[in-house]
Amino acid sequence: MRRGSNLPAVGTYKRTLVLDLIRRAPAGISRIELAARTGLSPQTLSNVARRLVAEGWVREGTPVASGPGKPRTPLQLDPSARCAVGIHLDPAVDTFVVVDLLGEVVAHAERTPRQDGSADDIVADLARAVDDLLAEAGRDRRSVLGVGVAAPGPLDADRGLLFEPPLLPAAWHQLAVGPRLSAATGLTTTLEKDVVAAMVGELWRDASQELQDSIFFYYGAGVGAGLAVDGTPIRGRTGNAGDIAHLVVEPGGPVCGCSQRGCLGVAISPERLLVDAGIVAPGHPIAAPALRGHLRALAARAAAGDERARRAAEHAGASLARAVVQINNLLDADVVVVGGPLWSLLSPTAAPALNRGVADSTETATLGGIRVLDSRLASEAAAVGAACLVLDAAMTARPTDLMIADSPV
Amino acid sequence: MRRGSNLPAVGTYKRTLVLDLIRRAPAGISRIELAARTGLSPQTLSNVARRLVAEGWVREGTPVASGPGKPRTPLQLDPSARCAVGIHLDPAVDTFVVVDLLGEVVAHAERTPRQDGSADDIVADLARAVDDLLAEAGRDRRSVLGVGVAAPGPLDADRGLLFEPPLLPAAWHQLAVGPRLSAATGLTTTLEKDVVAAMVGELWRDASQELQDSIFFYYGAGVGAGLAVDGTPIRGRTGNAGDIAHLVVEPGGPVCGCSQRGCLGVAISPERLLVDAGIVAPGHPIAAPALRGHLRALAARAAAGDERARRAAEHAGASLARAVVQINNLLDADVVVVGGPLWSLLSPTAAPALNRGVADSTETATLGGIRVLDSRLASEAAAVGAACLVLDAAMTARPTDLMIADSPV
Repeated sequence: MRRGSNLPAVGTYKRTLVLDLIRRAPAGISRIELAARTGLSPQTLSNVARRLVAEGWVREGTPVASGPGKPRTPLQLDPSARCAVGIHLDPAVDTFVVVDLLGEVVAHAERTPRQDGSADDIVADLARAVDDLLAEAGRDRRSVLGVGVAAPGPLDADRGLLFEPPLLPAAWHQLAVGPRLSAATGLTTTLEKDVVAAMVGELWRDASQELQDSIFFYYGAGVGAGLAVDGTPIRGRTGNAGDIAHLVVEPGGPVCGCSQRGCLGVAISPERLLVDAGIVAPGHPIAAPALRGHLRALAARAAAGDERARRAAEHAGASLARAVVQINNLLDADVVVVGGPLWSLLSPTAAPALNRGVADSTETATLGGIRVLDSRLASEAAAVGAACLVLDAAMTARPTDLMIADSPV
Repeated sequence: MRRGSNLPAVGTYKRTLVLDLIRRAPAGISRIELAARTGLSPQTLSNVARRLVAEGWVREGTPVASGPGKPRTPLQLDPSARCAVGIHLDPAVDTFVVVDLLGEVVAHAERTPRQDGSADDIVADLARAVDDLLAEAGRDRRSVLGVGVAAPGPLDADRGLLFEPPLLPAAWHQLAVGPRLSAATGLTTTLEKDVVAAMVGELWRDASQELQDSIFFYYGAGVGAGLAVDGTPIRGRTGNAGDIAHLVVEPGGPVCGCSQRGCLGVAISPERLLVDAGIVAPGHPIAAPALRGHLRALAARAAAGDERARRAAEHAGASLARAVVQINNLLDADVVVVGGPLWSLLSPTAAPALNRGVADSTETATLGGIRVLDSRLASEAAAVGAACLVLDAAMTARPTDLMIADSPV
């Protein structure tokens, strides 16, 4: 993800290339196949493999006889050899995960974000949560490749710095969460915008590669979109791609902070739904951490047949459909994944309205129809994605990094 | 552009790689430098270079002494060695270009699209126009690498097929323009959506690489957006990316075919501007080929101080600003190029309003501000881009095509 990153965790390009092939072969891959796939000499391949085995990344599987000659011993990734931590800071809920080398979650925690305290308190709290989760997962700190943090924009991903995400308390503003958390934990820390991280998480879990071109729609305390083109997440020039709050989906709808009416961000905001459903009174600000509880109440009422609750959620689904069609007209991705921290609460009622809205749209300019999928990772998408960014940086061989001339063994 | 294409015009990966390096070194590059950059052996490099010289792609420059030892002879691309044809079919105007190997235009023609005639007539007309332009440019048909066609969507780029572009006459609908034009001219033909082709053209001319992440806003008989991410144009899953006609920019504006009000496509359509400026009467359909003449009249009136004409063009610029901000919020590209067949007529009046609208927007979510640039290629962008797609297919070395194992000389 991070351009120009080096690969300290695995080593040289050729070692990374071999490890990359091994991890993409769940059933294992023999040294002979690896030599054929990489073009490395058997001797070089053997050296590379020996080192990966010695360092614990790779283990030898059961030898397989195939025709005459010596049976082939498949090399397999040891998913538990290393791990990565992912943290997702949504104003409504903080999510923490530890993932193994396959990106599978081995430990998970959620907590209500603290609304008070200084920047020091915030960082100390996060570091403690990381320690607790690693202890729960039974993982040694030395096996941790790093920490990925997903946060709302705007942010400076390269400097690990949050600017002033509108929905986070003021103590977060201008917080260099990357460097500070790195100092507090002793672990390399990567910062990425929440929607980009969520798209990365979905791509990692997308074994069938149906998300190579896709749009991730994020529903949390705020809304956003993660984009993938040809299997690569789009970060934008400053790492802040994915803001869709001001797409107009409901002309004549509520007034937005930008002074326009019917922007997506206000049209489907949790606050608006809660007011429309009669769960909170208009004009009373709701603290972001309280949103989950209120939306759970809304979902319960809708499920129990309450008309106002049902209509509020359906209205959000229909408005979201207009945004989905507009974004898809621009990108022609034709696959849309919906998730984020608060979506699962709305989805039983809102998803059918979303699907109807997309199917019935008169604005669709693309040809193949739009497939709307539920996120495989649900509320975990951004945390898992943040952790996978760490795995990606450590384990992905990039052909574009390779000049024919400079590929040392 | 076309994935999985082979490289018949240049040859193997290594020959393409060498030619690619030569064409990116305008002052020339020596065999020794080429060997160092590619990792090819001096012997292999020498063979590759000899063949490129023999086939006329490359010429030897004046030897340059550098320190002790034999002077180095720089190899330079011969831009005139081959050429490509670009055709841009906009409902308002057809544009034809011949470009050399650097993408420079060596011949140019425009004409009013014919509104009558059968598909056979259309194809025969296009083939005749290609012949005429090659004759005018003094180019032998054997030196033509191919024909690139840019056309409004929806289309099937892989099959070279137009579907039913709403603004083209019915004879164009379902026309397999790629295969048919290929048969009529004897030249390989590539079809690409107009906005994608325009972005390709801008990227080719972007020596300073400021457009690596950018948005091309296209103003012709219709509107659209070309997108570049990390220097690569975004085509979308079916090659139809870039439809922005239904972004709502003027709630309460004119009713669109989708039944919504204030969609960009109708809000800034030439027809609407012409009615608002009092140049044509409302309710009278205008044939697309007449738009240029009418818009020229509008521009002349605005320049002469006519209030209605000025306001109509300024209004379009302000509405466009809202679309620019929305698209940029999504992509965080931060550089927007404006062009297309009809933009230059409006731009003296509309561009200042566009710039003001972007600068004053309260909806901007990105950090660095948005730079709005005029297209370097103006109305030629899509035709040049279509021709450059042909050059790209023939001359670009793609590291992602290379497995270490299968890189034959």
